Amino acid sequence: MPAARTDPYLLTPGPLTTSARTKEAMLHDWGSRDSRFIATNARVRRRLVAIAGAEGTHVCVPLQGSGTFVVEAALGTLIPRGGKALVLINGAYGKRMAKILEYLGRDHVSLETAEDTPASAADVDALLAGDADITHVLAVHCETTSGILNPIEAIAEAAAGHGRGLLIDAMSTFGAIPLDARKVPFDALMASANKCLEGVPGVGFAIVRRQALEAGAGNAHSLSLDLHDQWTAMEKTGQWRFTPPTHVIAALDAALDQFDAEGGVGGRNARYADNCRILVAGMRKMGFETLLADAVQAPIIVTFRTPADPGFDFQAFYDSLGRHGYVIYPGKLTVAESFRIGCIGHLGAAEMLGALEAVRAAITEMGVKDCAPAQT
Amino acid sequence: MPAARTDPYLLTPGPLTTSARTKEAMLHDWGSRDSRFIATNARVRRRLVAIAGAEGTHVCVPLQGSGTFVVEAALGTLIPRGGKALVLINGAYGKRMAKILEYLGRDHVSLETAEDTPASAADVDALLAGDADITHVLAVHCETTSGILNPIEAIAEAAAGHGRGLLIDAMSTFGAIPLDARKVPFDALMASANKCLEGVPGVGFAIVRRQALEAGAGNAHSLSLDLHDQWTAMEKTGQWRFTPPTHVIAALDAALDQFDAEGGVGGRNARYADNCRILVAGMRKMGFETLLADAVQAPIIVTFRTPADPGFDFQAFYDSLGRHGYVIYPGKLTVAESFRIGCIGHLGAAEMLGALEAVRAAITEMGVKDCAPAQT
Repeated sequence: MPAARTDPYLLTPGPLTTSARTKEAMLHDWGSRDSRFIATNARVRRRLVAIAGAEGTHVCVPLQGSGTFVVEAALGTLIPRGGKALVLINGAYGKRMAKILEYLGRDHVSLETAEDTPASAADVDALLAGDADITHVLAVHCETTSGILNPIEAIAEAAAGHGRGLLIDAMSTFGAIPLDARKVPFDALMASANKCLEGVPGVGFAIVRRQALEAGAGNAHSLSLDLHDQWTAMEKTGQWRFTPPTHVIAALDAALDQFDAEGGVGGRNARYADNCRILVAGMRKMGFETLLADAVQAPIIVTFRTPADPGFDFQAFYDSLGRHGYVIYPGKLTVAESFRIGCIGHLGAAEMLGALEAVRAAITEMGVKDCAPAQT
Repeated sequence: MPAARTDPYLLTPGPLTTSARTKEAMLHDWGSRDSRFIATNARVRRRLVAIAGAEGTHVCVPLQGSGTFVVEAALGTLIPRGGKALVLINGAYGKRMAKILEYLGRDHVSLETAEDTPASAADVDALLAGDADITHVLAVHCETTSGILNPIEAIAEAAAGHGRGLLIDAMSTFGAIPLDARKVPFDALMASANKCLEGVPGVGFAIVRRQALEAGAGNAHSLSLDLHDQWTAMEKTGQWRFTPPTHVIAALDAALDQFDAEGGVGGRNARYADNCRILVAGMRKMGFETLLADAVQAPIIVTFRTPADPGFDFQAFYDSLGRHGYVIYPGKLTVAESFRIGCIGHLGAAEMLGALEAVRAAITEMGVKDCAPAQT
């Protein structure tokens, strides 16, 4: 694929750089009700359940659309209309879950911490002890607003200890940060094809405890986003209720072949952790500072504080990196000027070193002498 | 693309056979917030508005997911919570709109005709005259349950005459059957990439009268399916609120290049009409009967009655056609045994003649002597 080689590398939270093999899987057309596609769909669902260590307890329900669609579908289907949610917030994706609940008119309270501070399981425990009405805890595994990793195991323990359901937005971690249903009790996790699984965007999925899903019949606020209806129809016929993104699913199947070949979650985690180490070390060497302490930094996306040097201009920096073949991401913090560089996708040490060289070239072009941020 | 040539032809209502060029457009990765993708997205939206003859009056709001997602989004956003819909039903897609309104808890009445009988504009007119509470009429342009074309111009005239809004499910006609906003007044039409535009599945869109969309602020039952929010965010930044299916949109852009080169709606209509004529003539020559009279048959998908000959078995027929390289579609009628063969997709006379040959071979294999259906 000569054309693909001219594409810039996407150091973003996704859509991200995928392999040529994954994209080439989209060079076919499938009938959505034909047996060949039905077999692909069943295989993908089985593989996703296995990655979550959830065989026998949970089922996979894929859904058309972006990650937010499947998050909304899970919330709408699994939280009863008379239920109440505790939403853990330390960034945009936690806030988005609260916003969804407002659209749905479902009762909820929030526990918000700063963007650089993980949710506290002790606080969750105390809140649940004090409010018997809370039926579900909603948490984001890695909040890509900052790149912070929330302590999902401890949060799960607190929720389970009080007999409450746990719904996890695992969008940016699934497949790269271990989350095993045999060790971490959850009712559902929601993720999508185009993050650490390195597929293309257009389909999300939930891994849902079968009993929780069965209990969700009739809860949903939307036909399109009714995960229970989506599941029962798919179980009955192997087919999707409504037209599936056939090419996107074929690409995911191919991406999962490569995921397996890399050694599954362990292999992918090792490569991303390596990418992250190279990136952070190289940026620090140039004087950049990360927002987060290393202990809470997920190897997914890293937030760097904007240099205080008046020569630094984000748009010029972004454009220069683009000319060198690397696309980065603006910051999303409310508290500090920042930008983000991702570690995920079909990228390894060579591409991270190339990105560092491009950063070096960009700051030289801008005449930036000092990459340290303003002292806070 | 040698692999693509071995794919069967999809004689279905979509996903359908797309060109190699359209699929090859998916061999790249795009950052969803990068200027190159933003430009593609803007171009696609402009082109879709132009196809509807709706420049200056309407805007295009694309949405992740299948066609049903954008139909639900349009209903939820454009019909106020205190509104009331009249749903015209003569097949599964009209029924689905009524089902969506039940999920949403929005008031509605239905006008149902038999699956082989078009909706009557005179009946619509009488119903609207008798019920001042009805705010919106919901109609399906071509109901792919049977392949029937509903008289959308007359329905639009009736709705406009009473000052009511019209929402059109134009899923299976957009781009192939003329529907021009300058001649046919409508508040919104909903369609998707993977039908007559010959893109791949994963994105739908609504062409919405700007004033109707502005009035829809705050109506939606769902964050993901809030067309007003989707539109205002996209107008502000050129970007999608939530991850777009970048590859699917790039394929649609490439498909629209080919649509233009074929002569737009006129060119596409001519090819599909030709496909339909070849198919119906060839099938009738073998003794098959169409469900519909020619006058109400859209050149999109044709329903054939199942032969009464006891040698005919649908699964064997389907499998045999599949071995010859053609995928057809089961029937969806409630009133008669049937199957369907589509005329749309990247297919022309050669493929339709090939399909007829495959049908001939299949009925010979099954020992079917007479393809006439049971007399009703």
